[in-house]
Parts: sequence; C-alpha cells; structure tokens
Amino acid sequence: MKRSATRLADGRELIYFSAAGTGADELAAVEDRRPPGQRPPASEIRYDPLLDEWVAVAAHRQARVVLPSSEACPLCPSTADRATEIPAADYEVVAFENRFPAFGDAGGVLAGDGDGVDRRRPGTGRCEVVCFTADHEASFARLSLDQVRLVVDVWADRTTDLAARPGVEQVFCFENRGEEIGVSLRHPHGQIHAFPFVAPRTRQMLRTAEAHRRRTGRSVFADVLAAEQAAGMRVVASNTSWTAFVPSFARWPFEVHVYPHRQVPDIPALSDAERDAFGPVYLDVLRRLDAVYGLAMPYVAAWHQAPVHHDRDLAHLHLQLFSNRRAPGLLKHPAGTEAAMGVFLNDVDPDQAARLLRAAPTD
Amino acid sequence: MKRSATRLADGRELIYFSAAGTGADELAAVEDRRPPGQRPPASEIRYDPLLDEWVAVAAHRQARVVLPSSEACPLCPSTADRATEIPAADYEVVAFENRFPAFGDAGGVLAGDGDGVDRRRPGTGRCEVVCFTADHEASFARLSLDQVRLVVDVWADRTTDLAARPGVEQVFCFENRGEEIGVSLRHPHGQIHAFPFVAPRTRQMLRTAEAHRRRTGRSVFADVLAAEQAAGMRVVASNTSWTAFVPSFARWPFEVHVYPHRQVPDIPALSDAERDAFGPVYLDVLRRLDAVYGLAMPYVAAWHQAPVHHDRDLAHLHLQLFSNRRAPGLLKHPAGTEAAMGVFLNDVDPDQAARLLRAAPTD
Repeated sequence: MKRSATRLADGRELIYFSAAGTGADELAAVEDRRPPGQRPPASEIRYDPLLDEWVAVAAHRQARVVLPSSEACPLCPSTADRATEIPAADYEVVAFENRFPAFGDAGGVLAGDGDGVDRRRPGTGRCEVVCFTADHEASFARLSLDQVRLVVDVWADRTTDLAARPGVEQVFCFENRGEEIGVSLRHPHGQIHAFPFVAPRTRQMLRTAEAHRRRTGRSVFADVLAAEQAAGMRVVASNTSWTAFVPSFARWPFEVHVYPHRQVPDIPALSDAERDAFGPVYLDVLRRLDAVYGLAMPYVAAWHQAPVHHDRDLAHLHLQLFSNRRAPGLLKHPAGTEAAMGVFLNDVDPDQAARLLRAAPTD
Repeated sequence: MKRSATRLADGRELIYFSAAGTGADELAAVEDRRPPGQRPPASEIRYDPLLDEWVAVAAHRQARVVLPSSEACPLCPSTADRATEIPAADYEVVAFENRFPAFGDAGGVLAGDGDGVDRRRPGTGRCEVVCFTADHEASFARLSLDQVRLVVDVWADRTTDLAARPGVEQVFCFENRGEEIGVSLRHPHGQIHAFPFVAPRTRQMLRTAEAHRRRTGRSVFADVLAAEQAAGMRVVASNTSWTAFVPSFARWPFEVHVYPHRQVPDIPALSDAERDAFGPVYLDVLRRLDAVYGLAMPYVAAWHQAPVHHDRDLAHLHLQLFSNRRAPGLLKHPAGTEAAMGVFLNDVDPDQAARLLRAAPTD
C-alpha cells in the first residue's frame, strides 16, 4: 500500500491510499481549488457525574450537509466544474479530517479534572471520513476483495497514526449505512473517531472480561466465540481466520459479530493473512444481509478495538454489524426502554435471524 | 383515588382509575365483548456475557399493530360498533397488561444461573399500557393538573403493585411520544415495564453514586441538583418541591431532568404535596418543549426509580425527558458512535437548549 498526504484549503489533512503502490503521490499533488476556509471551532466534552461518562457537544455540526443530491456529493472526486472535499479527479481510498468533527485538535492534551459536577474539557481527538471508493453508486458489499483489503490496511494505518497522538485513548472505525439509520451522505464511506476517553461500552466490556478472567482464567471473548462455533446454528460465515455469527444475545433485529480467531487488540495487529481473509467472510455477511428482504439494509458496522493505553491483553478485536430494520416496512427505534434504561427488546429471535441470514442467497 | 380491576377476554388484567372516587366499579363491570383469545407466549431474556447485561427477546411483538387510523385505535373506549382494548364507554385513566409484552408471567421466579455463555431465562415480569385520557386527540402536555395528579397516583399504584411480585427487580414507568421516536399508537399513553433485573443504566448510576458517596460523603444526585440550582441558567421550571433543568451533560438535543427536592427512591414515596406539585412544573416543561419549534416534539419521558430490593437509599427518583429532534426537519439518530460505543455526540449545546426552552412561551 502506498499513502500520500496533502492539506485541504482550510488546513485539514487528506490522505490518498493506493493498493498498487503508485498514483497516490500524483493525486496528492492536486491542489484544493476552494478558497481558504475557517476550520470549525473545537468541540467540548462534558462530564456526566451520574453515569461517569463523557458527552461530546459539537454545536457546529448542526450546519452539516444532509442528503445532498448526487451532483452535489462532497465525497466524489472533483471535476473541472466542481471542487469537492477530494481535490483529485479519482481515487482508490481516501481519508480526511471531517469538516464537522465531534473531536478535533484542541491545542494539546486534556486539562486535569475539576472537582465540581459541571466539568468541561476540550474535545481533543480527531474525526476522519474514509471514502471506500470513488464510485458514488457502489456500496461496501459490492467492493472487490482487493478493495476490501485496501480498506483494512487504511483502517490499520489510521488506527496506528491516531493512537500515537497525545490525548487519544481509543480509535473507533465504523460505517453507518442508510438514511434509515441517520446517514447524511450516500457516497460509500465510513468514519473514524479518535476519542479522548475510553468509550463507555468498551469500559463495561473490559470490566466484564476482567471479572470473567479472574473467575475462570479464560477470555470471555474466546469463550463466546468457541460457544458459537460449537453451537454452529448461528454461524453465518467463516473461514480459517474469521467467524461471523449472530450472538444468542443480539440486541438488534439483525446483528452479526465478526471475530478473528486469534486474539488481537486491534486492526494493526492483524497479520497479512488475516487481513486477506477478512473480505471473503465480511462480504458474504453483507450480501446476505441485503438479500434477507431483497433490499439494501441500513446498518452500523462498528470495530471494537482495545484502548490505546491499557487492557490491550484483555480485549479481542471484533466487528459488530447490526441493522435497525425489523421488517421490510418497519424499523426498530431505540426509545424509552433502550435509550433511557439500556434494556434492549429484540423483536426478532436471534436464532431466527441467523436462519434467515444463513438461508439468504449471496448472489 | 378509586381503582377497580377486571379481566379482558384473553385473561389480561385491566384496572380503571378514577380521581373522583366514583365510577371505577361501574366501568369495571362492563365485559369485554371480544371472543376469548390466546395470550402471547412468554418472552425470553438472553444473557450478554460481554457486557453483563440481559436482552429481552419477544418475537411475538412483530405482530403488533403499527399506527392504526384513529377509527381503529385500540386505546379509545369501546363503542356500540367496536370493541377496543378498553371495554367501557369512557374512562379517566386505565392501565392494562400489554397484549404484546416484552416481559410477562412466566410461571414463577427466575431459574438459577447456568454456567455457560449462552444463558436464557423466562422473561418474567409484566408490561402494562397506561392510557392517560380517553381523548384520542389529547396529549400529556394538554392534561389538566387534576388529570396529571391522577396519573402520578396511577404510576405509584402500579409501581407498588408490580414491585411486590416475585422476580421483579425494578419498575420502569415511561412515555414514548411521536412517530419520529417509534411510537406505534397515537392515543396519549405511557407504558410500565416490570423488569426481572436492574436496568444497565440504573446499575451504572448506582455504582457511580456509591463511589461518589464513598469519596465525598454526599449524594451525587443532590450534588447535581444543587449545582444546577446554583448555576440557574439551565433551570427551565421549578417550585418548592421540584426543579426541572437541562443538565450540562445532556446527551440529546433537548433533554430535561425533573427532580423532586427531597431524596425519595420512587414514585410511591412521594408525599401528597409533592404529587400535587409535580404537574405545574412538568406541564410547563412539556409546553415549552412543544413551543421551541412550534410543533409537537417527539420525546421519551422516563422515570428513574430505585431497584425494588437494594440501593434504595442511594437512588434519587427523577424524570428524564428528551427529544431526538435537533431542528424542525432533522432528527438525531443514535448510530455507530452512540449505539455501538455509548458515546453521545450532541449537536445542540445544552446551555443553548436551556436558553431556547426558557424563552419559549408556555401558552
């Protein structure tokens, strides 16, 4: 993989990635024709003393573009007529700093804790957009294996780079797909957040993993993976390096977890062979997901990576893929029970969801 | 308050409540004219060993009615032509067992824990629907103070009753309002879930409250309330017994917490005077919420009550009200960052949300 970085007119970093090992430099040499702009103000994080969690407040995000027409897509390559976020006329994969970041450069590491209950800090970190392909009409499920491999390498590159920055405690690579889940741009893309804290769900997962290890001497992740492999009935796809299954405790109508068999803390720790082996399993799962109802499913695909600075031996990298579509015309809305209490009601039996995914055609 | 219970044709319990102290018995004497039906099968809870949380699986809920026309509303009183869920021709407030419960009578208390990672138990508990008024076109914000007081008494009655049942660990009273948040019936109503476990958010809150008490000797809830009262700028409404404020750490575009000044574990512990004083503050908040954009806002109103069997001295009853509307045409969708990682990005500064609510007309 070849990478070549440049700067947009407002100073944001943009990096072209090329699998072939050529071309990235030429793309990076193309200048952003837009006038120099102001970068949005830094965001703020607020401490919730009731839940011991941080909340990001980024009011400038209200100004972001929602569902522009394909002719106005900011993630397509630039043309002679139109300058987009990507100055070059084409690209394989590109990553750049989000114009409306929830976390951003805030001039250094976090300040120390205050003692009061209204605690605020700069939202240090970084938010990036990753365009998976220049083809506006594509989707992740329709990428080639080579393209997927390049995206995996980009996730690894960005994770390593962002994790090395001061104040970054966790790197979160994810894709939101579909208007039904709130996506504001249709071009195939994902996002990366470099958090100035460890995410609440990760913290809870590691707390549980530690208790499990203390009690049993084993990894809870390995135990879940082994149990699903042994049961077999909820396994959707697998090969020598990866297994994808609907967990028996799925919270969402369609939810699939994709695990590497080897316990690694994050994407950069995946071997060359493991990176190659991811695409066949993941594309199989994504294509089954779209085939269940014969329509493009909205989904979230979230990589659970270890924190940067601790518990790296406890964590086990995995991808959590889930859709909020519970039937062709119906969505699952996380309302009072889920949003206020954290209690999930799943209207689709995970065993049945697995049967539907296993029976779905992959092409 | 007068209460009178009856049974629907399929055996579900229904209770009429009357403020005046008359009429409930007459209503309860009206028989359900529908043929005897089958009650749905019990649901199941599944254990998530990664997060140490239970997930409810209730596949029969897929069959529930979504957004019927007002002529087909199952929560309106019955008429000569049409038998609804409520057999009587009118009512003040009525509570009944949900036809599509996520938790239900499952023949006794929970079985003991298994040791494997795929652990399943019957979804013991109960789900009830509470109709706030017989008027299909009303809303909670438009109830009279007397009606609100009756609803508070009903919440107290149901909490006491459900908490006394075997296997129930927490009682959750809430209202989801608006299609934008997933409500499937427009008639003004709320729901009550009797959980066979303590909700994850409650558990986290109590863990934090305990650490705060150990460290400071004080209640974290009282500290938050006192800090917001002292700051003043985010207080939306208050009287001698209650204060409603936008917390500085609000996760949602519009979020208001309503606290009784006295630390009580749950609604049944509220005094007569406190119950009377709730309506004026809460109605003020709800009316401001609808006035901010001049349109009926979708919202979740969730009562955070103490667990039934422990930590009742740590908890502090409060109502969490939040809307997912971030602008007239735009909703906040909890996608990858929120749903997978528990990291909330709020596009509306809570200080600004408070300013908008404080400036909004109340009629």
